[in-house]
Amino acid sequence: MRKIAGSARSWKGGAGQSVTLGIGDDAALFRPRPSHETILTCDWFLEGTHFLPEKHPPDAVGWKCLARAISDVAAMGGAPRCFLLSLALPESHTGRWLDLFLGGLRRASRKFRCVLAGGDTTRRNKILINVTVAGEVRAGNAARRSSARPGDVLFVSGRLGEAELGLWLLKQYSEPAASKNLAARKHLYPEPRLALGQWLVKNGLANAMMDLSDGLSSDLPRLCAASRVGVLLERAKIPQLQVTDVALKHGHDPLQLALHGGDDYELLFTVPPRKVSRLPKMFQGVDLTAIGKITRRRELLVLEESGNTTQLMPRGWDPFRKKL
Amino acid sequence: MRKIAGSARSWKGGAGQSVTLGIGDDAALFRPRPSHETILTCDWFLEGTHFLPEKHPPDAVGWKCLARAISDVAAMGGAPRCFLLSLALPESHTGRWLDLFLGGLRRASRKFRCVLAGGDTTRRNKILINVTVAGEVRAGNAARRSSARPGDVLFVSGRLGEAELGLWLLKQYSEPAASKNLAARKHLYPEPRLALGQWLVKNGLANAMMDLSDGLSSDLPRLCAASRVGVLLERAKIPQLQVTDVALKHGHDPLQLALHGGDDYELLFTVPPRKVSRLPKMFQGVDLTAIGKITRRRELLVLEESGNTTQLMPRGWDPFRKKL
Repeated sequence: MRKIAGSARSWKGGAGQSVTLGIGDDAALFRPRPSHETILTCDWFLEGTHFLPEKHPPDAVGWKCLARAISDVAAMGGAPRCFLLSLALPESHTGRWLDLFLGGLRRASRKFRCVLAGGDTTRRNKILINVTVAGEVRAGNAARRSSARPGDVLFVSGRLGEAELGLWLLKQYSEPAASKNLAARKHLYPEPRLALGQWLVKNGLANAMMDLSDGLSSDLPRLCAASRVGVLLERAKIPQLQVTDVALKHGHDPLQLALHGGDDYELLFTVPPRKVSRLPKMFQGVDLTAIGKITRRRELLVLEESGNTTQLMPRGWDPFRKKL
Repeated sequence: MRKIAGSARSWKGGAGQSVTLGIGDDAALFRPRPSHETILTCDWFLEGTHFLPEKHPPDAVGWKCLARAISDVAAMGGAPRCFLLSLALPESHTGRWLDLFLGGLRRASRKFRCVLAGGDTTRRNKILINVTVAGEVRAGNAARRSSARPGDVLFVSGRLGEAELGLWLLKQYSEPAASKNLAARKHLYPEPRLALGQWLVKNGLANAMMDLSDGLSSDLPRLCAASRVGVLLERAKIPQLQVTDVALKHGHDPLQLALHGGDDYELLFTVPPRKVSRLPKMFQGVDLTAIGKITRRRELLVLEESGNTTQLMPRGWDPFRKKL
């Protein structure tokens, strides 16, 4: 679309110098930094599956489709450089909706220093978005899911369950009313933990790392499976949302939200015991909380406040199980 | 999907060594070659827009979704390395359809030495596919659309219009009957001109280059616009399909098919006059044909067989104008 190509010229941010050929040719050209590996990730963002056009403002759709793909780069400890946007739209959405969408996308692009390098557009009766992000990390430094070791302490950044409560508020109330709420804003405008991921990797503090997109109870088993380890999660330590009163008022259990809520885009990472003392309680305003321990025995257990242990059951986001 | 992740281990081809972390983590890791730029491109391949599930066998859907994205790498003169697959499927298609789709995809992956490095899957009532390909080209060598110079001779590879006739045959006849035809096979299983693109770039023969996906009459104006030049196309020289009898029998004008037919994935490139003699008539079995000349005056003209000139009107594929 000419509109995207035209506005792309004004999109160049700090990472622009690594993109040597942007939108308008058959493909984009990206100049890799010496001694770095390229990180590649892509994410669907589909009307009805990942967002609801009557509830999610176009500006938030633009922001979030990029932010959530960038979160995968944060999870590797890398820095985003550029992205490709694949967009399919109804003709009715090529005017004001597209302008607002591009506004949100451009804000995220600038904030996270990730420039638009190319893409593909077509017509469709539903809004379909796919975003590919290319990032970089010093060769050999990337944090993987598969490197957790028995004895590692399991950490999580931020507070869990806020985005899920935010989605619930958006579905209950009109968008302008709901988006005044902190939880709704976290759902609409997530902030990938780029600085934290890069700091952990640069200082060799994280053995394994991933981002939380589908909920702790669904994502933690993936980290354990990739690393061929188990975990003992301490229920009492899981950082719950700050707006507890809002959750309780609406009958939500903050702990259930924290365990199973999706879309938080916080980092989940494991730290060898001898390095735990090097972690601050808070990094750039974001809490870092030890919530459990990696075990050799490949079981997923929760230490309840009673002192008993129970099995961790995945109940987070699963596109083949539930709809938005 | 576990099925994709599982089979991915057996997908490693010659390019596998450049992918240092494949499917199953938050993102893929790709080790760039020294002195090379990375080529990034993505393409939609959507049910109803780009293929018809009752006409396009799943094996061809798998082959083609990758081959057409790789064609953009060929158009830069690069070599593909790895790809990301974003796939949304109805639950009814996660069995046999998916197996056959992955079979075609794997064949293309091996043939073009482009390994599966990651992706994203979700559920959807229609089949949605988006493919991102990462390739490489020696830094500074990539062919662009924007480098055509007045006086350049315009060349095209292969024969034009076959894929369009193939689509028509598929729509008229049952798939098994139609796919015996050369034109239908070219529509279903296109072969990106990787060797030709790389040879042209390595030998510094092409000033500007692009691939033909939407049809000559739609794509040529894009090359001219990017290069701020015009063209004088010689109608009599445009290489038409080999199966002329089939086209005529069904009332298709081979010249119209060659001018406006989409999905050929041939290369369109411009060569400075002093280098024209270095081009063979045929490269690895593919015709190379001079079809016109780049002009300083920014007009798109066709030299008719009568000796008159007419305006070139874009009548190729446009997702905002027509449906498949």
